[in-house]
Amino acid sequence: MPAPDPVLAFDIGGTTVKGALVAGDAVISESRRPTRRGPALLDVVADLADRLVPDGHPRPEAAAVLLPGLVDTATGRSVRAVNLDLEDEPIVGPLDERLGVPVRLGHDVTVTGRLIARDHLAADPLVVVIGTGIASVAFAHGSPVTGTSGQAGELGHVVVEPGGPLCACGARGCLEAVAGAGAISRAYAERTDEQVDAATVLARRSEDPDAAEVWDLATRALADGLLIACTLLAPGVIVLGGGLSEAGAPLVTELDALMREHSHVVTVPEILTTPLGGRAGVLAAAALARGEL
Amino acid sequence: MPAPDPVLAFDIGGTTVKGALVAGDAVISESRRPTRRGPALLDVVADLADRLVPDGHPRPEAAAVLLPGLVDTATGRSVRAVNLDLEDEPIVGPLDERLGVPVRLGHDVTVTGRLIARDHLAADPLVVVIGTGIASVAFAHGSPVTGTSGQAGELGHVVVEPGGPLCACGARGCLEAVAGAGAISRAYAERTDEQVDAATVLARRSEDPDAAEVWDLATRALADGLLIACTLLAPGVIVLGGGLSEAGAPLVTELDALMREHSHVVTVPEILTTPLGGRAGVLAAAALARGEL
Repeated sequence: MPAPDPVLAFDIGGTTVKGALVAGDAVISESRRPTRRGPALLDVVADLADRLVPDGHPRPEAAAVLLPGLVDTATGRSVRAVNLDLEDEPIVGPLDERLGVPVRLGHDVTVTGRLIARDHLAADPLVVVIGTGIASVAFAHGSPVTGTSGQAGELGHVVVEPGGPLCACGARGCLEAVAGAGAISRAYAERTDEQVDAATVLARRSEDPDAAEVWDLATRALADGLLIACTLLAPGVIVLGGGLSEAGAPLVTELDALMREHSHVVTVPEILTTPLGGRAGVLAAAALARGEL
Repeated sequence: MPAPDPVLAFDIGGTTVKGALVAGDAVISESRRPTRRGPALLDVVADLADRLVPDGHPRPEAAAVLLPGLVDTATGRSVRAVNLDLEDEPIVGPLDERLGVPVRLGHDVTVTGRLIARDHLAADPLVVVIGTGIASVAFAHGSPVTGTSGQAGELGHVVVEPGGPLCACGARGCLEAVAGAGAISRAYAERTDEQVDAATVLARRSEDPDAAEVWDLATRALADGLLIACTLLAPGVIVLGGGLSEAGAPLVTELDALMREHSHVVTVPEILTTPLGGRAGVLAAAALARGEL
């Protein structure tokens, strides 16, 4: 039986819901909406679904939704997603009904990590997704290391700067409070009173000393966080995904140099950026919808 | 076919080589010698082997040696063990000949971790061995997470105090430079000019403010290091081994309280100490010699 095609794919983040209609490797249409908190999130998904299918196009045969936080795929519920105000909320049941197709639910970083890691499984890859937050998924023996609770891979909440900037989680000096896209944007605004996104800070760093310094501090923290992960997990390769990974080769070169400079015990593995870029999430959701991941 | 019995078991550490003759669960005889560096280490093992077998006792049928550092079990060599001055040194071949029995080689923390974790595998345990150094082994899907290089689990070299005490590895603020048994002993000597071991510092902490403060700093660092490991690995249980784990319930109570106080994202798992105590290494080597691990 061929895999269902086309499929609806949704990647739900703390600020944006990305949706796409995907057939094979091709993205037929894509769109995004601001995230709404609580059960209203389901309205955003249903609204996106309506708009993603062009008139006269074959109807989707399946859908998948990726959520952050703690997800129970067996019962189709969000157990807890603090950034979305979800707590023990049914997702699959209501969406099955509203979208009219079978819906699968997955944990965003685990499922996206599976897709990003697919060509590297033999090397025990560490996938690190750097967006507003930072999360990771390590692979061992070909499978993601999720922990019994499913909560493994919270690299963004590893403390790299004790007493450092306050993180959304309530701790100080978490990696994502220094090196996440949101933190980069905030740190630049504190220096310049100008509110721009992390990609703009990156673009300005060769001419703007504030941008250069903010970026430098973030990169150093990221290198420290990756070294900690390597110390515990010894991945054979690190694959970067998420918005900031689109910085590409310059980011990889800087991280590699900083990690080698700071590393004493750890062998620094090859660092790559995923060629899937910012679409990794919806492409992973599409693969999940087709039962491939 | 019954497993070969009795067996010779050797656990080689940076300061001490422990040897035992083991039959079933019973330790028939045990002894220890100061570690010698380089190939002279093999003389220590052969000398211990001679003395471990009582006159008239059945000759051992197999042996196993556990080494720190990077071990190639396929070729029976120590690839690199900086604390032992070993670099690409054959171990199994020469010892087969000198002991007159088949010898197996294993990585100390991985093999000891397997024995310590044996009753907890379903909970993705994290085994942490706290001695002169600190190392860990995480289990996922029933197997140890070793990384492609076999170098995973260097929890002792996770930086918990940037700019902190200099570690033997050359970095500053590594967990074992603050909370290892050697570090505890050194920190106490710096305050009091008295050279005692970590167990003595522990024993004195209710009456001696210096001992109390040194122990407190070590315990806090250990809690921070364990939290980092939990953030990345989400183990269902932490099992402590090694000399310091013999501190038992008071250590567990303190670590649990500190981890809960500092934890924001992570669920703090149950913490146990292994009932095998300081014998875990030789018992694990015995199990390896019998082909059980």
